[in-house]
Amino acid sequence: MAEKSPRGLADVVAASTSISDVDGREGRLVYRGYDIHDLAGRISFEECVHLLQRGTLPTQAELDELTAELTDGRQYGTAASALLPYVVGSGTPMEALRTLVSALSIDDPDAADMSIEADRRKATRLVAQMPMVVAAYEAERRGRELADPDPKLGIAANFLLQITGQSPSDRIAEIFDECLVLHADHTMNASTFSARVIAATLSDMHSAVTGAMGALRGPLHGGANEAVMKTLMSIEGDVANVDDFVRAELDAGRKLMGFGHRVYKTEDPRATHLRRMSEELAELTGNPRYYVMSRRMEQVVLDTKGLYPNVDFFAASVYHALGIPTDLFTPVFAISRMSGWTAHVIEQHEDNRLIRPDSEYTGPRDQHWVPVDQR
Amino acid sequence: MAEKSPRGLADVVAASTSISDVDGREGRLVYRGYDIHDLAGRISFEECVHLLQRGTLPTQAELDELTAELTDGRQYGTAASALLPYVVGSGTPMEALRTLVSALSIDDPDAADMSIEADRRKATRLVAQMPMVVAAYEAERRGRELADPDPKLGIAANFLLQITGQSPSDRIAEIFDECLVLHADHTMNASTFSARVIAATLSDMHSAVTGAMGALRGPLHGGANEAVMKTLMSIEGDVANVDDFVRAELDAGRKLMGFGHRVYKTEDPRATHLRRMSEELAELTGNPRYYVMSRRMEQVVLDTKGLYPNVDFFAASVYHALGIPTDLFTPVFAISRMSGWTAHVIEQHEDNRLIRPDSEYTGPRDQHWVPVDQR
Repeated sequence: MAEKSPRGLADVVAASTSISDVDGREGRLVYRGYDIHDLAGRISFEECVHLLQRGTLPTQAELDELTAELTDGRQYGTAASALLPYVVGSGTPMEALRTLVSALSIDDPDAADMSIEADRRKATRLVAQMPMVVAAYEAERRGRELADPDPKLGIAANFLLQITGQSPSDRIAEIFDECLVLHADHTMNASTFSARVIAATLSDMHSAVTGAMGALRGPLHGGANEAVMKTLMSIEGDVANVDDFVRAELDAGRKLMGFGHRVYKTEDPRATHLRRMSEELAELTGNPRYYVMSRRMEQVVLDTKGLYPNVDFFAASVYHALGIPTDLFTPVFAISRMSGWTAHVIEQHEDNRLIRPDSEYTGPRDQHWVPVDQR
Repeated sequence: MAEKSPRGLADVVAASTSISDVDGREGRLVYRGYDIHDLAGRISFEECVHLLQRGTLPTQAELDELTAELTDGRQYGTAASALLPYVVGSGTPMEALRTLVSALSIDDPDAADMSIEADRRKATRLVAQMPMVVAAYEAERRGRELADPDPKLGIAANFLLQITGQSPSDRIAEIFDECLVLHADHTMNASTFSARVIAATLSDMHSAVTGAMGALRGPLHGGANEAVMKTLMSIEGDVANVDDFVRAELDAGRKLMGFGHRVYKTEDPRATHLRRMSEELAELTGNPRYYVMSRRMEQVVLDTKGLYPNVDFFAASVYHALGIPTDLFTPVFAISRMSGWTAHVIEQHEDNRLIRPDSEYTGPRDQHWVPVDQR
């Protein structure tokens, strides 16, 4: 018979994966055997996509081929275009983007093909389309024309170009590229697990990543980077006010977003790189305010609560310095994580078994129907 | 540290629920303490919705209130309307409906409200909208006007009216109503589990049920009723040909859809009722062919494989006799199951914990980055 498991399946192994691994005690994150510290700042997001979706760091020929596929695949089609005016009217960007991502299947030439080869083509297209859809959403709600992507630029630089309206410097594009690498995969988080549960019915790639978008929308998963930025912006005046702010929040029993992690018991290795980028951007932009505030907040929280910053904490000041609107921080996470989600769907389909857990019934027993007039 | 679990989380308790319970050895299905045999044919789908979403069989006043809410809530809004011409062009109905259901949030007046009270209103609206959206999809692809719902009719009768273009007889409507009751919930199946994983990030109702739609699309979960119908239609000539067909399929190592169940080791209690309805419809329509074939196939499969028919097997001949197009059988399942999915999302939100399992890393270790020209 069924065994009772820890609530939320904490520490229950739900699947095997060769895509990524986390050691929470050591603070290690590994993509296909490569430590994230070995990859960050050295590989482009495109190389990372190849690593996650296709299993290896690409040779130059493989990278050229993938880049051509990404360039060819980024048009998002008529259905998503038709939806744009409707989704900008109300709701959050993630709500809009969930529906837009779902609609991408309508124009996908491989939508009806459930083979692994078609999965791979859909996976590449989704990675190419995701930043385009976010940029198109941003343009639509601002009443702007969407700038055409520049075929000489990679995914990171093109996205910044389309969001800010101007070509980023090489270094700025490199920094954002590194952000995309850092967020690309993270084992069995809630959105990736959603994608695998859906894919495990042998449902299609778009159904799985649409479910993942829905999960990432939830504040216990996505949204923390946006919450961190709103917190930083809410602290007025001198940087020293951070101390009072943090103590007041903690005294009031409120949770400070961007700290602690269900898996990491030490510093999140991604935070190490994002802290460095936040510092560099403070210098490059000549506006150190949010970096300095973040450093101060990090120190106070570590001193008083013993909690380390997670991936979301320094991502906030980094994305802000890159000119990304605060409410697009979670969509930017999705642009990166689409590479991991799609890799997990391919892996699930390659060796599938339905994911169908049990449940424990805690409701009433032995009820007996009576006609409505006797209730 | 993490413990290895059975593949696919079989028999792992992922959540507590007071909505439904299954005893696979006894062949029992229970909704909130009521045996399905006690409810089938006695309560309307609307009463079932009240039982699942609100916890009790309704009094007449409660039923009147719910019915009014369902009538008020069925309009599906401008975004789904705008999508209709795009989604009918290609793809399967479930692919189209996943995107249409996601788009329902755009026009939902409570979309931004994450309270349990708003969850309940969204849940009722989604149950009201789902048959409307399926009927609108059917009308759009046939190039027909969608018939207005008749305010004097319930969900079951209105759906048949809108799909077939004519008002069903009272008895035909009752039979379909009973089908909707039978399919309404079934513990932690893959689509319901998808909905709960998504909801457990504190994401919204529409994200969760969109994920459920994506999971139901997979052939290991939805679609078996359609496959059964296609099988029945493919057997030409005399009913006695069923014997040869089944033996040829089994000899060729092919799986016969509609038999066996991961949970039930005896007859699926829903099949008992669907068999009876299939027989009655054979008489009412004067066309017994698919009922007689189904009975013969059931006998041959039980004799040769020891497998019992599941909920999908007799649903095929029932839906066919009701005039529902074969490729809408899974959407009809979704019309019913929307009541269960939404009830589970409310329950998850009422006492939430993130569902975040672990994974076992089986990939390469100790890889070291080298520049692209040295790969």
